[in-house]
Amino acid sequence: MQLSNYVPVLNWGKNYKKSWLKGDISAGLTVGVMLIPQGMAYAMLAGLPPIHGLYAVTLPLMIYAILGTSRQLAVGPVAMVSLLTASGVGAIAEIGTEAFLGLAIVLSLMVGVIQFALGLFRLGFLVNLLSHPVVSGFTSAAALIIGLSQLKHLLGIDLARSHHVHEIVLSAVERFGEVNWYTLAIGLLGIGLIIGAKKISKAIPGPLLAVTFGILAVVMIGLESQGVKIVGTVPDGLPSLVLPTFTWEQVQALIPTALTISLVGFMESIAVAKAVQKRHRDYEVVPNQELIALGAANLAGALVQAYPVTGGFSRTAVNDQAGAKTGLASIISALLIVLTLLFLTPLFYSLPKAILASVIMVAVFGLIDIKEARHLWKVDRSDFWMLAVTFIATLSLGIEQGIGVGVALSIAVHIYRSMQPHVAVLGKIPGTDQFRNVDRFTDALETSGTLTVRFDGQLYFANLSYFQRQLNELVEARIPGLERIIINAEGISYIDSSAMHELHNFITNQQAKGIDVLFSGLIGPVRDAFRKNGLFTLVGQHNFYLNVKDAVEAPQTDADGRSANELALQTNLA
Amino acid sequence: MQLSNYVPVLNWGKNYKKSWLKGDISAGLTVGVMLIPQGMAYAMLAGLPPIHGLYAVTLPLMIYAILGTSRQLAVGPVAMVSLLTASGVGAIAEIGTEAFLGLAIVLSLMVGVIQFALGLFRLGFLVNLLSHPVVSGFTSAAALIIGLSQLKHLLGIDLARSHHVHEIVLSAVERFGEVNWYTLAIGLLGIGLIIGAKKISKAIPGPLLAVTFGILAVVMIGLESQGVKIVGTVPDGLPSLVLPTFTWEQVQALIPTALTISLVGFMESIAVAKAVQKRHRDYEVVPNQELIALGAANLAGALVQAYPVTGGFSRTAVNDQAGAKTGLASIISALLIVLTLLFLTPLFYSLPKAILASVIMVAVFGLIDIKEARHLWKVDRSDFWMLAVTFIATLSLGIEQGIGVGVALSIAVHIYRSMQPHVAVLGKIPGTDQFRNVDRFTDALETSGTLTVRFDGQLYFANLSYFQRQLNELVEARIPGLERIIINAEGISYIDSSAMHELHNFITNQQAKGIDVLFSGLIGPVRDAFRKNGLFTLVGQHNFYLNVKDAVEAPQTDADGRSANELALQTNLA
Repeated sequence: MQLSNYVPVLNWGKNYKKSWLKGDISAGLTVGVMLIPQGMAYAMLAGLPPIHGLYAVTLPLMIYAILGTSRQLAVGPVAMVSLLTASGVGAIAEIGTEAFLGLAIVLSLMVGVIQFALGLFRLGFLVNLLSHPVVSGFTSAAALIIGLSQLKHLLGIDLARSHHVHEIVLSAVERFGEVNWYTLAIGLLGIGLIIGAKKISKAIPGPLLAVTFGILAVVMIGLESQGVKIVGTVPDGLPSLVLPTFTWEQVQALIPTALTISLVGFMESIAVAKAVQKRHRDYEVVPNQELIALGAANLAGALVQAYPVTGGFSRTAVNDQAGAKTGLASIISALLIVLTLLFLTPLFYSLPKAILASVIMVAVFGLIDIKEARHLWKVDRSDFWMLAVTFIATLSLGIEQGIGVGVALSIAVHIYRSMQPHVAVLGKIPGTDQFRNVDRFTDALETSGTLTVRFDGQLYFANLSYFQRQLNELVEARIPGLERIIINAEGISYIDSSAMHELHNFITNQQAKGIDVLFSGLIGPVRDAFRKNGLFTLVGQHNFYLNVKDAVEAPQTDADGRSANELALQTNLA
Repeated sequence: MQLSNYVPVLNWGKNYKKSWLKGDISAGLTVGVMLIPQGMAYAMLAGLPPIHGLYAVTLPLMIYAILGTSRQLAVGPVAMVSLLTASGVGAIAEIGTEAFLGLAIVLSLMVGVIQFALGLFRLGFLVNLLSHPVVSGFTSAAALIIGLSQLKHLLGIDLARSHHVHEIVLSAVERFGEVNWYTLAIGLLGIGLIIGAKKISKAIPGPLLAVTFGILAVVMIGLESQGVKIVGTVPDGLPSLVLPTFTWEQVQALIPTALTISLVGFMESIAVAKAVQKRHRDYEVVPNQELIALGAANLAGALVQAYPVTGGFSRTAVNDQAGAKTGLASIISALLIVLTLLFLTPLFYSLPKAILASVIMVAVFGLIDIKEARHLWKVDRSDFWMLAVTFIATLSLGIEQGIGVGVALSIAVHIYRSMQPHVAVLGKIPGTDQFRNVDRFTDALETSGTLTVRFDGQLYFANLSYFQRQLNELVEARIPGLERIIINAEGISYIDSSAMHELHNFITNQQAKGIDVLFSGLIGPVRDAFRKNGLFTLVGQHNFYLNVKDAVEAPQTDADGRSANELALQTNLA
């Protein structure tokens, strides 16, 4: 175990090539410029003063650059985590208060501790419990909620503070008469600028263009007096390093939110890191080290009064396209933000909130994924319903509940499916050595006096009684005249002690009726379990075959009928 | 669908044979005689006046006889359900109060509704989530708790009312000086009588013998004045039919207990019903109909002021051995209890509680299963820990929590295991057509330029990244020189949409590198998924083979290399 596994900066720092520098500087500056409007906008989405979004892209970025395994990942505030912060902290403190701000910082600390610990204990695999349909349904719903949450800034009116889509829409319709048309115009122009810039070239920093336009419009036309809401005074200077203070009650109340952010944030981050890594291949993305790096970044974030961060889709793509080769790009981005904090904050006084809303709205509406839903409807109906239920649960029950429902449902469906695995009766396809499912291959013929059956899936406590029932039905239907049962076990990937017990009973019962039970194609781990449980002795070593053909062609069992099956005997020992 | 499927009495009632009558009468009377002490004892265990244990074996037995599919199952109060009643109702009402009694009756109503609904909606399979190790650990712990809960009656002293074993034992040690030696002597003699009778012949009704002895001892020696606690006045006559009254708050509070009893009770009942059915074979045990029958029995129980019942081990065994052929035996048992209620209750006035305690203790200590734990330690360490954790959780956290921990743990372990299934690189065993795991078969040889890999288990969202990582590592280790990857898919029992998506990516990536991806041995349901997702087109129809050998021997892909693979083509359509 090398130190550089834990501090990947040692890898690229030692071997840094001059040729990388140009790309790193150019990407670092591009992303830094993007971060100014995005950082402030996402902080607003999270319910925090915009400046805290800038704090979040100082120290945390540098820490990730040192500890992270991805060389292009751009860490910082992202829409989903901001929304989770707003809804989670919003449930225990009023948005806009000092208490809310303090709790958001404590949340960053907690996410840091959780992610760091998950990485340390190598629990990164937990993120695999989030299936594609669940993530897709959750993301679409969250994007809808986020987009609508910005409607009030875009229209310039107070709307019902709610995460329920219908309440927001209703409230907007009711108060439509109060719309501030200057605000709406600024916001729509901002949206147009960002989308237009993207269409022309990805190199144009649309959001920064929109911000510049917004500030100029407010200053030059004097829109503030027309009721256009602006950001106002943005404190200048670097954040002071303060240890966050908290009570255990606060920590307890924040645990569900912190866990959700830890996993959802990690999932988003690892997905984009892996996607970008595929284009490079000069390094590996190591999930557990990524957790450690993100955890450390969030811990550092709590020190500089930031709220939770993670690796984001859009900025990482820009970072990569602008030529980032190492974490140096992120360090340069962070330095640009530091300079901004020191010298440029007064510029943002006149920035309209509607422009920040437009930045958020453009970012998230692209996340609503109708194509995936349509695709699943065609190819996998059960996964479509998983997506739909998660989507609806997120909209109706809430953000964290939605993802909880999705995960629980996908595990339940998985268990339910494994409770009734596919069972096939096999017959020989004439003219070949192949034995296939007689229900699918109409010319396949069962061997007389023999039931050949394939069980596809692991055999464990939850599908045991299904296995028994299926097997008994097949056996009953062939009595009298049944002489042997061949269980083709190549599809049985695992067998637990409960199943071993029942299999033992089944074999004993059949043997008592004079029916032989043979096995073919047992895989290694299952052979091990058979050996430990004494099933080789019960069944007879000579009744294990490598494939169905050998089993079917084997002579009827007699005490020394073993010679025919030497290879299988050898197999049982391997 | 015939009416007799839903009312099985029509089956045996119509075809009732005269020769069955003798067995039914003899078994019915034997079980009826057992029910008198057991019913009273288990009611005491449940925290109810003994008479309610007798009420529980009137109408419910008759209802089960009409609706149940087992012809030997003896329904009534059992130890586990009685304990669950005591702990569940005890958490919201004081044992011994009217409120407690009322809630126990409401509980019977709720269990009835839940079991009936589970049966109606064919959800009986849920009981399969209880694995053998979890049931074994839970049962042993519950038996220990039940046995110790009777210690106070056996010693004739007040002990701490607790479900924590160590508190009860500590309390007994502290107050040992207060032991009533007459009570203890009666109890120990009762235990001796029951065990002795069982040893001599199972036909001797040991508990009834103990009851008779107890009553005689109290009456003749005047033990009541020596402080021996007796049952006291037992109301005579049949229970009045009353609809239980309840509030929604009470129902809500009882839901966890009702769910646990519904499942645990059903599990005990179905297990014993299936075990007995194996000796008869003139009928089938239908799990969902059993739920309907037990549900109806519990609903009827609520009407006659009973508490939850289910099919029990010991009485069913006696019923079967005494010759029961149909549900008529249970009806006769119930009639005997009705006669007892009408005429014999005064006899039980002097019955010592220590005797009832001895009946319970003998019944439950037999349930403590150390053998199973020892067996699992040897053959399946992970299942051993499942048993141990459930045992300890039941003792330390409580009855319902224990089984909850067990079920959650066994599902978690199942998921965890399926997240990293067995993957094998295959090589050819010289002189055969067999391809086997090169790690186990030392003489198996990999084909040069070919990676042949077998993935054992379903491929779904949770093990996708594991699959990817394994495959990529194997591929990287063989570059340069790798020309084709053969995925032996006979062990892949299912594939979901997330996995399809990743498989698509993997194939595209390999093809871009000039590496062919071939598949062998796809099972039918997986072929269906491939077809729906367009993977046959992506991979090329001719790259699917029936087995590894054909795939390995196939010529390098060319546009019309299909003739070699006609059977496989046919397969893809089947």
